[in-house]
Amino acid sequence: MQKKIWLPENEMPTHWYNVVADMPNAPAPPLGPDGQPVGPDALSAIFPQAIIEQEMSAERWIKIPDEVREKLLLWRPTPLVRATELEKALGTPCKIFFKNEAVSPAGSHKPNSAIPQAYYNKQEGVKRLITETGAGQWGSSLALAGNMFDLDVRICMVKVSYDQKPYRRLLMQTWGGNVFASPTDMTQVGRDVLTKDPDSQGSLGIAIAEAVEEAGGNPEANYALGSVLNHVLLHQTIIGQEAKKQLEMVGEYPDMVFAPSGGGSNLGGLAFPFFADKAAGKDVRLVGVEPTSCPSLTKGEYTYDYGDSSGLTPMMKMYTLGHDFMPPGIHAGGLRYHGQSALVSQLHHEGLLEAMAVGQTETFEAGVLFARTEGIVPAPESNHAIAAVIQEALRCKETGEAKTLLFNLSGHGHFDMSSYDRFFKGELEDYEYPEEAIKASLATLPKF
Amino acid sequence: MQKKIWLPENEMPTHWYNVVADMPNAPAPPLGPDGQPVGPDALSAIFPQAIIEQEMSAERWIKIPDEVREKLLLWRPTPLVRATELEKALGTPCKIFFKNEAVSPAGSHKPNSAIPQAYYNKQEGVKRLITETGAGQWGSSLALAGNMFDLDVRICMVKVSYDQKPYRRLLMQTWGGNVFASPTDMTQVGRDVLTKDPDSQGSLGIAIAEAVEEAGGNPEANYALGSVLNHVLLHQTIIGQEAKKQLEMVGEYPDMVFAPSGGGSNLGGLAFPFFADKAAGKDVRLVGVEPTSCPSLTKGEYTYDYGDSSGLTPMMKMYTLGHDFMPPGIHAGGLRYHGQSALVSQLHHEGLLEAMAVGQTETFEAGVLFARTEGIVPAPESNHAIAAVIQEALRCKETGEAKTLLFNLSGHGHFDMSSYDRFFKGELEDYEYPEEAIKASLATLPKF
Repeated sequence: MQKKIWLPENEMPTHWYNVVADMPNAPAPPLGPDGQPVGPDALSAIFPQAIIEQEMSAERWIKIPDEVREKLLLWRPTPLVRATELEKALGTPCKIFFKNEAVSPAGSHKPNSAIPQAYYNKQEGVKRLITETGAGQWGSSLALAGNMFDLDVRICMVKVSYDQKPYRRLLMQTWGGNVFASPTDMTQVGRDVLTKDPDSQGSLGIAIAEAVEEAGGNPEANYALGSVLNHVLLHQTIIGQEAKKQLEMVGEYPDMVFAPSGGGSNLGGLAFPFFADKAAGKDVRLVGVEPTSCPSLTKGEYTYDYGDSSGLTPMMKMYTLGHDFMPPGIHAGGLRYHGQSALVSQLHHEGLLEAMAVGQTETFEAGVLFARTEGIVPAPESNHAIAAVIQEALRCKETGEAKTLLFNLSGHGHFDMSSYDRFFKGELEDYEYPEEAIKASLATLPKF
Repeated sequence: MQKKIWLPENEMPTHWYNVVADMPNAPAPPLGPDGQPVGPDALSAIFPQAIIEQEMSAERWIKIPDEVREKLLLWRPTPLVRATELEKALGTPCKIFFKNEAVSPAGSHKPNSAIPQAYYNKQEGVKRLITETGAGQWGSSLALAGNMFDLDVRICMVKVSYDQKPYRRLLMQTWGGNVFASPTDMTQVGRDVLTKDPDSQGSLGIAIAEAVEEAGGNPEANYALGSVLNHVLLHQTIIGQEAKKQLEMVGEYPDMVFAPSGGGSNLGGLAFPFFADKAAGKDVRLVGVEPTSCPSLTKGEYTYDYGDSSGLTPMMKMYTLGHDFMPPGIHAGGLRYHGQSALVSQLHHEGLLEAMAVGQTETFEAGVLFARTEGIVPAPESNHAIAAVIQEALRCKETGEAKTLLFNLSGHGHFDMSSYDRFFKGELEDYEYPEEAIKASLATLPKF
């Protein structure tokens, strides 16, 4: 039996798949503060034209530029792996496959979108890209991508992470990225924060506001976002397309597809190409797995909310915990977001995509079992999908169902070992975000 | 043009290649303190019979057990990659290929030997494996392997690394390894050291002595070594065999083969299968690349010396700087060894394998250029091979020679980012180990 299924390089997808073309209803548009739909012009200060077109597009297939494919070939197609050793340890009748996105230079799926974003900005004469990063997965991917197309990349890294996670900061610097501890003194937002509190440890909300301010005020600079938006999910669909081809090579098709669910790029990337089949009548279940501490899909409300915590961005119709949601300090940094991609949200709202929440301790238990069977130490985000797959595989062991399960191993945990340390020491908490807090936060929103 | 060359799983080598069969002269035997050759019995207290047989064997091909192949398939065959982006950056007429051993779960080539060692010990009823580790590459690989065959793995980690490199320690713990800061109070050696100096920071010499003492005193425990010995190099020849097949798939053969050279497992693993062709008349140059701070092949003497710094092991005929050589605190921990594999040493002595030394700063410059072109951040050890390849590629740019160059990317640098930090801060030193110190150290040795 084959352990790893390799797709030949010349079969790497040539187009991204746009799920909008197959959704039963058109996506709800983003709205401005006046409650009116936001047009492309509002975005042109911070995004290149090609990205704005993708954000608004309803075309089913969008061509991947040759220059982007050439760079993706550094590590793509990624392997699809049969988790034989995990199957044995569980004693399950299920077949478990995972798509290994951890093999990218940055160690996660994030470069799949960072590279086209850098490319389109370069094409349109942009000299500098600015972004924010929490734990550093997206920041390191954009540093890698910016270096490929000779762009100056500036990363506002939340100060507490800047100080506590020096390794991922160094990774960005190795690829030539300029990393700043946010709040910085380069922006008005940053200076205001520092005036009030010179010892501020920063937050993702402040870092986003700083990045957007600097990008908006400089005609040669743009902003880049690593999840949530339609174009980001579009770029990630290369994952699911490859997985479909690879499963086909061994005569398989998944009954269920699992991915961690934070801003949606991980989930959309793997699941949307399977949604195309589901829309055509195929029986396949798509499942987003989120933390119980940040349960936007399972406990949030489907309503218009801001994309950022400061209320600067247009409002999107999405599952949200309220934009002033204060995420507890859980270790899956990539899943600490108050909202959810509008596309994922709409599909979930329409009953076409499921969601479940898993507690933090269970996710690390799953990750350690995975490391001790399949070898790879997963990122804390990926542990959510693994925990869900293990639940299903053990359920099937009871019922005797021999399902085919597929999940996204979105990244490795080499830069997250301190989180494993806290798990081994029994210091991790299983935080359930209180429903009253969600209600109180959502009550402050304007209703459209 | 193909970027990555994948070998199908069913073409992964079924046998290890034993270079002894093709060496023009039989290997010089290891000697005991009396100057007499050491027989298999002397090793049986700490090694299983199958390993001792391999250590002494002159058979050309030794079968890889099916159970070992099954585990190696978790990540093998590893990709052979054409370093197209590095070639462009250098503007060289050369073709540069690298074998990417960084894709293993432990992030280096070390599991190639850890897995068979764990397997043979399990087969012979051993319950516990004990080893030492400096920076942690070998310790993490043995933890991974021990977990696969349900062995208790104990790792004596040099205390200064235990304290300063918690991430790699956590990696060992994730795979179930028991890590102890050496000196420990579990052994006589450790207790003696602690009595004299309760604050001892440890050394690799102390850690080896502790591991050997504990393994020798427990009939259910054995010792495992990650480099230097014949059987370790044997297990690593899967690297070069795969690389040959992969080059053949694209119609190439290397003019020169480069690998970092510390204890010899990296170099022997890639180069020995090409030596088989060289012995049959093929024109191929094999080059070991070592640090100027630890120049055993380029400045050491070819003589009998102890394998460890305390003089406990049998003596081997090898290039050595003297077993009481004090390696400076360079950042390629895997290359800080006073001696060199007896097999590599003999081939070098007979003019069949070349060696060169590179300064530390140049190796990190090479690693950063590699990361900024090919994406992957290399281990400091691997940077030595990259620096040598860059030297040759630039030399060929001058002369117009279009050579095919192959090197071993033996590991990634995800757990070595603090070394990159010191490089970026300009804090790395280019240490040249003084020849007088080598002479003084070697003068103390008995001559055989």
